[in-house]
Amino acid sequence: MALRVQKYGGTSVADIGHINHVADRVIKAHDQGDKVVVVLSAMSGVTDNLIALAKQASETPDKRELDVLLATGEQTTAALLAMILKSREYKAKSFLGFQAGIQTNKTSGKARILDIDCENIRQALENGYIAVVAGFQGVDKDGAITTLGRGGSDTSAVAIASSLKADVCEIFTDVDGVYTTDPRICNYARKINKISYEEMLEMAILGAKVLQIRSVEFAKKYNVPVHVRSSFSEEEGTMVVNESSDMESVIVSGITCDMNEARITLKKVPDQPGVSAKIFTPLAEAEISVDMIIQNTRSGGETDLTFTVTKDDFERAKEISEKVAKELGAVHILTAEEIAKVSVIGLGMKSHSGVAATMFQALASENINIRLISTSEIRISCVILAKYAELAVRTLHTAFGLDQKK
Amino acid sequence: MALRVQKYGGTSVADIGHINHVADRVIKAHDQGDKVVVVLSAMSGVTDNLIALAKQASETPDKRELDVLLATGEQTTAALLAMILKSREYKAKSFLGFQAGIQTNKTSGKARILDIDCENIRQALENGYIAVVAGFQGVDKDGAITTLGRGGSDTSAVAIASSLKADVCEIFTDVDGVYTTDPRICNYARKINKISYEEMLEMAILGAKVLQIRSVEFAKKYNVPVHVRSSFSEEEGTMVVNESSDMESVIVSGITCDMNEARITLKKVPDQPGVSAKIFTPLAEAEISVDMIIQNTRSGGETDLTFTVTKDDFERAKEISEKVAKELGAVHILTAEEIAKVSVIGLGMKSHSGVAATMFQALASENINIRLISTSEIRISCVILAKYAELAVRTLHTAFGLDQKK
Repeated sequence: MALRVQKYGGTSVADIGHINHVADRVIKAHDQGDKVVVVLSAMSGVTDNLIALAKQASETPDKRELDVLLATGEQTTAALLAMILKSREYKAKSFLGFQAGIQTNKTSGKARILDIDCENIRQALENGYIAVVAGFQGVDKDGAITTLGRGGSDTSAVAIASSLKADVCEIFTDVDGVYTTDPRICNYARKINKISYEEMLEMAILGAKVLQIRSVEFAKKYNVPVHVRSSFSEEEGTMVVNESSDMESVIVSGITCDMNEARITLKKVPDQPGVSAKIFTPLAEAEISVDMIIQNTRSGGETDLTFTVTKDDFERAKEISEKVAKELGAVHILTAEEIAKVSVIGLGMKSHSGVAATMFQALASENINIRLISTSEIRISCVILAKYAELAVRTLHTAFGLDQKK
Repeated sequence: MALRVQKYGGTSVADIGHINHVADRVIKAHDQGDKVVVVLSAMSGVTDNLIALAKQASETPDKRELDVLLATGEQTTAALLAMILKSREYKAKSFLGFQAGIQTNKTSGKARILDIDCENIRQALENGYIAVVAGFQGVDKDGAITTLGRGGSDTSAVAIASSLKADVCEIFTDVDGVYTTDPRICNYARKINKISYEEMLEMAILGAKVLQIRSVEFAKKYNVPVHVRSSFSEEEGTMVVNESSDMESVIVSGITCDMNEARITLKKVPDQPGVSAKIFTPLAEAEISVDMIIQNTRSGGETDLTFTVTKDDFERAKEISEKVAKELGAVHILTAEEIAKVSVIGLGMKSHSGVAATMFQALASENINIRLISTSEIRISCVILAKYAELAVRTLHTAFGLDQKK
């Protein structure tokens, strides 16, 4: 008998038919003797519709109240699934964020879970209930409703799994696992059977949308085994677990491509101490997070400074940068939105050299120019022009031997 | 400076445009220096849509979970109004049932308010906030969401007004007050300026849908002045208050017509002690409430027993009655759905005789046959065939001198 937390995403609960299908899977696990906690997202599209409604009410909807509004999406699916389970003669009970004891900080719209008191859920499970939890939501210490940001239901599920010491946290989604790269870009993408938290984290950060970043951080921190799998098939998906010896001995596990960044270059910035601070402090104060930064020294005590931000932050970042550039006497500012960041990720990089060289050669062989480079212990990222993105992904996928044999 | 609780019904918050209009009114009161608590219903039609969705999920949706689902309707409007108020630079905050401290019993779908702890709201008001409360919902002692039944937002508003000792509870609706009868039936119906709790209660019970019955009971019990008025005009509506000397000295205040009952007659029931109990006990056990009962003695130790139930309960009541009739050896059972109950209501009846006579004569003058009669201290009701309903209402309205001079 296992304790399983199952999370179903928006496409898996898109309508009553789909929710009935979720009920089938939940019941199957329950009938095997497992204790089941189900965490649900809102029906696909609902969150976007609610945001559109809020924007009708106010151009910049108050964040606290937006959370109150958005929380109705998951409340709806949780109530509907519990109803369906009960109409099939199973004991079931819905739990909203405040009932599930999910306490967060006060950052409306992207709150962080501070603490979970799963006593209510634990009791329900002990009394034979299937617990159906509205994902994505919590309450702050004053009892105000908060939401955890896009994909937050993943984090709800992992956090509950950790609090209940569940045997597994199953993330049911519309893909059948984590792939070596986006199968829509590369025909030869392979499903990964097992991946480490570290690699998954890099992939999530770099735009693989299969898991919310925070959910992976949470899983890593509390060592929660996560199983990413399809809600439309019975096949095993991808296990996200601690690094272990039985993982495939590959150097590179996956290739990602992030089209969501934009680049800003300040030309002829004075090459003096403290200049970087003058540029990046106002950006930080505006809560704009800068991803990659590169500085090229020019002759004559001047330098070019290039950095990337997300497209959402681009307009604001440009405005702030232009103001700073003027103050610093920088000659002009160049901006480009049409960039892509391709990355190779793999635990194997820790012990293998030559990954960077292989990557640069592969891109060069297709005449793809690299604009910016950044690295971590298990990742190398290159910014290129967006038009080369798909070609770069396919080239790297082949170069690192990831192609599926067809 | 007054403390005002304002409740807006579904048609008053039907879309963002309407909610903006509500914001105008709320702001006007606030700018006058009043403290304002706003209680909202769901957008008109939303509750019905949610019920339809639930029926897709389950033929007989679990009541606990239906409440969780329905509560999203008021959560939505409360969040939207708070957003709009904030975008207009007013301090505002939404409160759901659990945040407003509205504690109810466990009767899902028609919970009763047991206690209100308005401390959160009171604090918000003191800090200059406009408090926006999701009506219709509360929580039971275990923290489960409950709803108060159709029109329950009226009761939320009155209960909050009573707890806060508000100066007035304004019920904004799509009509401009309480009328002597339904203006859709009678052209000469007049708006009543002031009516007693007792009369209002009888009118609500008898199908005047302007206020939920429980809200009037609550207002009467805690002496909350209620002002029923239009959200689409500035005119004064109807004050519902304690009986007082300055009320219009009329004998009859209003005429109601309830088409929502059905009649069941058991013919040739043995006229013995205990027979009534045998008929009405199983109905009570099935939670069917019987309204009017009449027993006509026939010759030969037999009697005819007629009673009315709501149309919703009719099929079940018929089934139970047929079973009992068989056991009792009653000859046959007659049922008729096409009845109407017309009633005249007035505090004046306490001290004036002859009201019944006037009523019966008026109906007789139009050849309308009376099938059943029931009375209370301030009400006389007659069951007639449904086809005469409108004629009866107009006739009685004239007979009791209620017609507006046009």
